[in-house]
Formats: sequence, structure tokens, C-alpha cells
Amino acid sequence: MFLHNVGIIFFVLNYVTVHCKPKNVLVLLGDDVGFESQIYDNKICKTPNLNKLASRSVVFNQAYTSVSSCSPSRSAILTGLPQHQNGMYGLHHSVHHFNSFDDVRSLPYLLQKAGIRTGIIGKKHVGPEYVYPFEFSQTEENHSILQIGRNITYMRHYLHKFLHNNDSRPFLMYIGFHDPHRCGHVHPEFGSFCEKFGNGEPGMGVIPDWKPVSYNTDDILVPYFIQNTEIAKQDIAAQYTTISRLDQGIGLMIKELELAGVLDDTLIIYSSDNGIPFPNGRTNLYDAGMAEPMLISSPSDTHRWGQKSEAMVNLVDIVPTVLEWFGLDYPTYKLNKQIVKLTGKSLLPILHEEPTSGWNSVYASHDLHEVTMYYPMRVLRKRQYKLIHNINYKMPFPIDQDFYLSPTFQDLLNRTRHKKNLNWTKSLKSYYYRPQWELYNIINDPQELKNLAYNKQFIDVLRSLKVELNQWQNITNDPWICAPGGVLEASGTYKYTPSCLPLDNDT
Amino acid sequence: MFLHNVGIIFFVLNYVTVHCKPKNVLVLLGDDVGFESQIYDNKICKTPNLNKLASRSVVFNQAYTSVSSCSPSRSAILTGLPQHQNGMYGLHHSVHHFNSFDDVRSLPYLLQKAGIRTGIIGKKHVGPEYVYPFEFSQTEENHSILQIGRNITYMRHYLHKFLHNNDSRPFLMYIGFHDPHRCGHVHPEFGSFCEKFGNGEPGMGVIPDWKPVSYNTDDILVPYFIQNTEIAKQDIAAQYTTISRLDQGIGLMIKELELAGVLDDTLIIYSSDNGIPFPNGRTNLYDAGMAEPMLISSPSDTHRWGQKSEAMVNLVDIVPTVLEWFGLDYPTYKLNKQIVKLTGKSLLPILHEEPTSGWNSVYASHDLHEVTMYYPMRVLRKRQYKLIHNINYKMPFPIDQDFYLSPTFQDLLNRTRHKKNLNWTKSLKSYYYRPQWELYNIINDPQELKNLAYNKQFIDVLRSLKVELNQWQNITNDPWICAPGGVLEASGTYKYTPSCLPLDNDT
Ligand SMILES: [Ca+2]
Ligand SMILES: [Ca+2]
Ligand SMILES: [Mg+2]
Ligand SMILES: [Mg+2]
Repeated sequence: MFLHNVGIIFFVLNYVTVHCKPKNVLVLLGDDVGFESQIYDNKICKTPNLNKLASRSVVFNQAYTSVSSCSPSRSAILTGLPQHQNGMYGLHHSVHHFNSFDDVRSLPYLLQKAGIRTGIIGKKHVGPEYVYPFEFSQTEENHSILQIGRNITYMRHYLHKFLHNNDSRPFLMYIGFHDPHRCGHVHPEFGSFCEKFGNGEPGMGVIPDWKPVSYNTDDILVPYFIQNTEIAKQDIAAQYTTISRLDQGIGLMIKELELAGVLDDTLIIYSSDNGIPFPNGRTNLYDAGMAEPMLISSPSDTHRWGQKSEAMVNLVDIVPTVLEWFGLDYPTYKLNKQIVKLTGKSLLPILHEEPTSGWNSVYASHDLHEVTMYYPMRVLRKRQYKLIHNINYKMPFPIDQDFYLSPTFQDLLNRTRHKKNLNWTKSLKSYYYRPQWELYNIINDPQELKNLAYNKQFIDVLRSLKVELNQWQNITNDPWICAPGGVLEASGTYKYTPSCLPLDNDT
Repeated sequence: MFLHNVGIIFFVLNYVTVHCKPKNVLVLLGDDVGFESQIYDNKICKTPNLNKLASRSVVFNQAYTSVSSCSPSRSAILTGLPQHQNGMYGLHHSVHHFNSFDDVRSLPYLLQKAGIRTGIIGKKHVGPEYVYPFEFSQTEENHSILQIGRNITYMRHYLHKFLHNNDSRPFLMYIGFHDPHRCGHVHPEFGSFCEKFGNGEPGMGVIPDWKPVSYNTDDILVPYFIQNTEIAKQDIAAQYTTISRLDQGIGLMIKELELAGVLDDTLIIYSSDNGIPFPNGRTNLYDAGMAEPMLISSPSDTHRWGQKSEAMVNLVDIVPTVLEWFGLDYPTYKLNKQIVKLTGKSLLPILHEEPTSGWNSVYASHDLHEVTMYYPMRVLRKRQYKLIHNINYKMPFPIDQDFYLSPTFQDLLNRTRHKKNLNWTKSLKSYYYRPQWELYNIINDPQELKNLAYNKQFIDVLRSLKVELNQWQNITNDPWICAPGGVLEASGTYKYTPSCLPLDNDT
């Protein structure tokens, strides 16, 4: 017995030192960033550091968020569960005050339990603390968000500190850049995207590591989902400038890994929490709100570096990816009496080889953003078709405080008031009032303009997508599964046969 | 200096022992109880113990809840702040998961800090724990809710324990009866109101202290807001039987005070959290949902015992009442950067003398009940007029899981489906679809059936009530103050001039 045990211990130590050097994960998350990069065919907005990361990554062309709102998305990234399953139904801060359920087993929780070092620098925006425990935590909870989220010199300093404390455990470091989030709502003095913050002009302060890049509005590319006007172009130009700070920040962080000698031991995941803060983007689940950039750089699979993947992946895939990277299983437990199952899958196999089957659909789910902005949506996005269920559809789509004050939205309001041409694919009225169901043929209609949900020709497509969407709502224990036309009954008489019972309320 | 201090201490001790025996507060809260009592002119439903309490109380004929939903109302009772100000926007338990803001200074928190003993027995239904800390806590968090909320013998046992532990500090004891809440949704085996739970029949268990009272459906009084049908009468008969358990429980608790020798040192407050679980009641802010029974028995003001008060009072008046009773001030602090001011007032002066002016209006505010039931309403109720603002008015009024399965609601559904006479003042359609504004002349139209909000004759009344309602929303820092037609901007450019900016969204 004694000898036998010694043998096992020897084998394990040997395996760890020889075959399995400590392997780390670095998550780099932009805030409201989209496809403003050459990586995604934007020829104007310069992102040399992202380009460099892409050259040692698999570039995902079909990555999607689980929800297009900050806290809900970050909760989904960190728990692997859609917001309706983890309880973060809307924003975490201030009067909104959403929190994940106490019993949620988040990624930092699971890693900490497994002896992996966890750190966060920058925007956290989720809670409660005990559900999202990071050992090393430099966030808006103990810093100004401008400094810890946008001052890349300051952020680099903390990463340096984290990497140089003589702790040899493998780690997860999660860096939440606040760029290129809008700024005009809270700090208009720094410009609509904080594009002046730290640029060295009088009153703007200096971020030593940042060399701002300016853009000529004539050169700006206006995406199809934004009105093509001078004001929108200026707004986008400001966004591009702020992206130069994000891009350089990413370069600095990767450089820190390199200097610490861990770059070749670290899985790097780059993405964004939600769509860009423009019409159809953030808080929406049109592709402009739902599609995300995603780069994953694995030091173990260099042969796919620089390649593109067309697998449809979701931010809820990050948890299973990181767990597999660390060789950990997801635990078996319940939330609100329901068994929790991850619906995401590890992306590591894709880093090794482009899949030849599967990865053909993603789901999304939104409930609120600000607490006053109730607009639940459930979405199934496949390669050809996309189904959106707007649950509170009779009320106007809500506009958040930040976006409302943006030059782009004010331009839409003013043009509508003065009956000027919007140069937009929609009217404000059609943007506010949406049908209960939206069905798009994405291949023929990538701009999602022609709703087929009420076209009899697509009745079978609609029915089958509804069934799939409902199955996912069922697996993810969606409290809204019966809304708005029915009531979910799941206890007493219905304990073993949870049912949607009809309200006869004409929805 | 030394002698001077001694003098002060002597004076204080003398005052406490001679003029100010330890004075306590007992709050007795029914769950979804209404006016089913002789005290409020219901001749059928027998409540001998409540009657006895009324004979040593001031009986409030115009008491109203701040919100007609369990957790939000209990949070308003315990904080003195409407739900939209304390953060408990909906139910606390399960997937709903609403919680008051971390910095709220609740009644148990303030009393504990002031050295007053605090206890709770029965239904709590609010959180987080650190916002609502009770020293002695026997609730659904550590017991079955059926036992700790409906088993009056069990509850009496805990009150006895609380009263006999040789602690001479003054106390607040808050007893949350779960009766006469519905039961059919979770425990149909005990009847629609748990009217069989503990009645001694096979499988029902025994509550030794309860002598169930049965009612003949022929004798039942159907309130104007419920359909007059046989099924509704049976449902009400079950409610009456359950009220016999509440009533006897109240008798037991007061008896315990008497046995412990503290009855004449204790302020007793009896009320309910919200309207009865029938159409127009709970989750509604029609008077059937908003008006509450309220008895307050003060041992210091025996001359008004048995008298009625017509002062319009609100459950948010309980905090200032109890603070005054204990001689404490409400602290100065902020929530979400906004100064907190109590809008309620102490009711102690009313126990002394019927007011000759003031007390002519009350406010109410509802956001959600279940998390899927978004239906914000804001209400100003005066003696003659009542204004209701339905913020999500284009969507159907939501029905909760508990009420949906009730015999009364199923009867409405079935009669509507089979085109049978409803014997009701409304149709299901008019119940679901409500106009954005409702204005009633309560004196001429106590049943709130004739909406004057869109009648030009009442344009000035409407305007002035809207101004008053808006002022209250402003004072109470209501996040919904601009909804649904505007966006509240209160930072950056609007930091010193918070404003509702128009969305032009046709609401
Ligand atoms: Ca974001
Ligand atoms: Ca209740
Ligand atoms: Mg909780
Ligand atoms: Mg909190």
C-alpha cells in the first residue's frame, strides 16, 4: 500500500512538471466594442495591437453575446448561464440593483475552490461579491472607473503587480476595459466616448501609455444599422479614437504577460460584453447588438493562429472553455430548485481544428437594462434564420439614459421632429414599436429588415424555431417561458408537470 | 463638571423609571387580509379577538398600503420608504429575487442600534438579512412557512420564549401571520386558503389552539369587486375559515403579552400587507387592493379606545410611529446619492386626538410582483379623487401564479370562455387592458368604475393631481418618474437639474 501510494504521487508530480506547466487564462473584455478593426474588415479604425493578437489567435467570425447589456452579459460570461438563469436580469449598480442568485457557482468561485489564482482589473459590474469572488480585485468598487477602466497605464501597473508576486499557481486574470463605452452621459467634459480623457490637452489629464489616434469624419464608415449623417459620423469618429486606447491597452497587457514570461503559458480570450451603443446595437438583439468580436489565442494550438472560424459561438461558451483549460468539471447543483446545466460548450476543440458539424445556433435572452427598461426578448440565431420574441412588445422599446444623450440618438430625435430625412433603414416609430415575433432570413436579409414571422410561407420555419427556442428556455429554467400569454405553474398540482396555462389576454 | 454630570445621570434614570417604564411595540400583520370583520361592518365573518383588540384601539377607517404585494409592502412597512425608494421592487423569494438597497436604514436596524430588542415570528419575505436584522428570528428562513406562519400554537410558543428570557430591554416584536394567504397554488391538499391545515381531519394535522369556524356559502357577502357567483362564494367561505385561525392567533398573542405582564406597556399595531387575493385586490391599486384594516392600541391613550379615525394613513406611517414611541429620530443619510426623507408621519397624535386638519391624501407605488409581472403604477388617493398612473398600460395587467389557480379567477376565465354572464362589474378584457391614466371620483363612484381622466370637465382636477403625484415621486426619488414617455437624466450636464427628457414614443 505504502509503495503503491508513493508511485502515484511520483507519477502525478512528473505529469505536472513535464507535460503540464502551469497554464493561465487572460480574459480581455472591451466594453460595448464591436467590429471596428481590420480583423473584421473595417479598413479605417486602426487596431495594430488587436491585429497582432489576431495573428496568434483563432478569429471567430460568428461569435455572439448571450445578452446585449453590461451586467447581464458579464454575469453570463462569468457564470456560463444566461441572465434569466443566473438572476442578473439587468444592471447591477445604483437603483437597478440586480444581483445573481446566492447559490450561483461562478467561474472565479470554481477556480478559487480548485486552487487557481483569480484576479480582476477594471470594470466588474456584477454581484453579489460572494458569488463573484476574485482574490486580486482592482475594480470600480475600490477605484474610480475612469482610472481603473480607461487609464491603461494604471491598469498595466496592476497587472504587473499581479504577475510579480511570486505566486506560482496558475491564474485567471479578467481585465474589464471600460473603453470604448460612452461617456457623455456622466462626463460630457471628456467627449461623447471619453475620447479626450487622458489625451494631454488642458484639463484632460495624461495617460502616459496612450497615443490617441484621430479620425477624419470623411473617412468614417457608417454601419448599415446607424443613420448615415454627419452627426453620426462624428460620434463614430470619437468611438474610433477611444478604441485606440483600448487597442493600446490590449497591447500593454499582452506585453506584461511576455515580460513576466507567461505569454506562452496563457490562453488569451478577447471579446466584448455587448453591441455598440448605437441604434440596433446595445440593449437590442439584432445582429448589431448580438454579434461580438472574439479572438482566442492558445499557446498549445499554434497551427491555427491567424485562421478564422465560422463556428457559431456564444459568450456562455467561455466558462466551459476555461474549465476545460484547467481540467475542471462543472459541479452538479440546483438554483431555485432546478438543476443547473451549462448550455455552452468548450471552444478548445475549435482552436485545434475547425469543426465540420455542429455549432450552428446560438441563443440570447434580455430582460432589462436599467430597472425601468423592461423589454424581455428571447432569440434563436441560426445560420439562415433568426427568431426574436419580443415579450413586452406593445410598449415602446426603451432607450437608456446613456444612449439617449448621445449625439446619434439626439440626431434621430431631431430629424424626426423636423421631418428631415433620417438616412436610416428605420423610422423612430418602427424602432420603438416592434411586433411580438420577428423572423429574418439572415442570408438574404442580413440587415434584418423584412420580418417573415407573419408571412404564411414561413409558418413551418417559424413553428420549428419556436419549438427550439422553447426547449432552450426550458433547459435554462427561464421564468419568462410562458410570457406574455400564459402563466407558468410549476408547484402544487403542477409540481411534476410544469405548464404554461393560458391567460386569454390577447397576447 | 463632575457633579453636573452626576446630576444629569440621576435625572435621566429617574425619568426612565418613574415616567417611562420600558415600552414595547407588537406588530401583528395579516397576510392578504382585508375587511372581513365586524369592525369593518362585515356581519358574517366572525373575528371576536380582533373585535376585542378594536375595543382597546383606535380603528382606522382610511388606512392604505403603500403597495399591494407581499415583499414590497413588508419592505415599506419596515423601512417607511415606498418600494421604489427602498429597492424591493417585487417579491423577495426564488427567481424574483428582489432586495432592498444595502444602505437602507430599516426599523429593526435602527432599533437594534438604539439598544431595543427586536424579534420576528412568522413570514419575513424581505432581505437582505443585514438590512433587516432581527435579534430573535423565527421565520420561513429557518422553519416551514406553514408551521411558523399558520400554526398559531407554534407561533405562540415562540412568542412565549421571546417574552420569558429575562431581558428587560424594551422590544419590538413583529408577527407575520401567513393567514389568510391563499394556499391552493402550492398546497392544494389543504384547500384554496389552507382552511383545512391543522383542522384535525385525517391528513390535515392538528393546531391545538385553533377552533375552525365554518361558513355556509349562502351567508357569504361578496364584495362589489368580486363576481357574484357560487364559486366565488365558496372561495370566500374558505377565506373566512382561515381568518378564524388568524383571529384566534391574534387573541393568543395578546394573551401572551398579558401573561408576561407587558400588555399595558405595549403599543399594538394590527394591519395587513396588501389587498385580498381576489380580482381588483392584491397586485392592484384599486381601493380593493390598497385599503387595509388597521387597529392601533396604545396603553397611554385609553380615552380613544374603541373610537374610529377617518385620518387617511399609510403603512409607511408605521416607521415614524414606532420611532416616536421609542423616542428616536430618523437618521440623515443617502441612498443612491439621494437624500432619504420619510414621507410618512407618526400616528401617535391620532391615538390621542382625532386630527382636525391634514391626513387627506395617501400615495401608493407598485412595480412588479413576480419578476415577470412588470406593471408599474403610481397612485394618489385623496378623499374625493383618486389618480392611477399605469406605466406599462399597453400590455395586459399580469396575473400571478397563485391567483391564477384560484377558484375565483378560474371561474372568470371559464365564464368568459363560455360566454356566460360574469356577474361582475368588469370583463376580463377591461381588467387586462387599462388606460394609462385612471381618475375616479371616489365619493360618487366608490367602486372606481367611471374613469374621468379623459373627460374634459376634469382637466384641471387631473392636472393638479398629476402635479401632486409627481412631487411625491420626486421627493421619494422614484426611478420611474419619467416613465413611460421620457428618460430621467440626472448626471453629467443634468447633475444639478435632473430632468425628464421626451422620447417622442407616443406614450
Ligand atoms: Ca457594455
Ligand atoms: Ca401578502
Ligand atoms: Mg439573495
Ligand atoms: Mg446590493
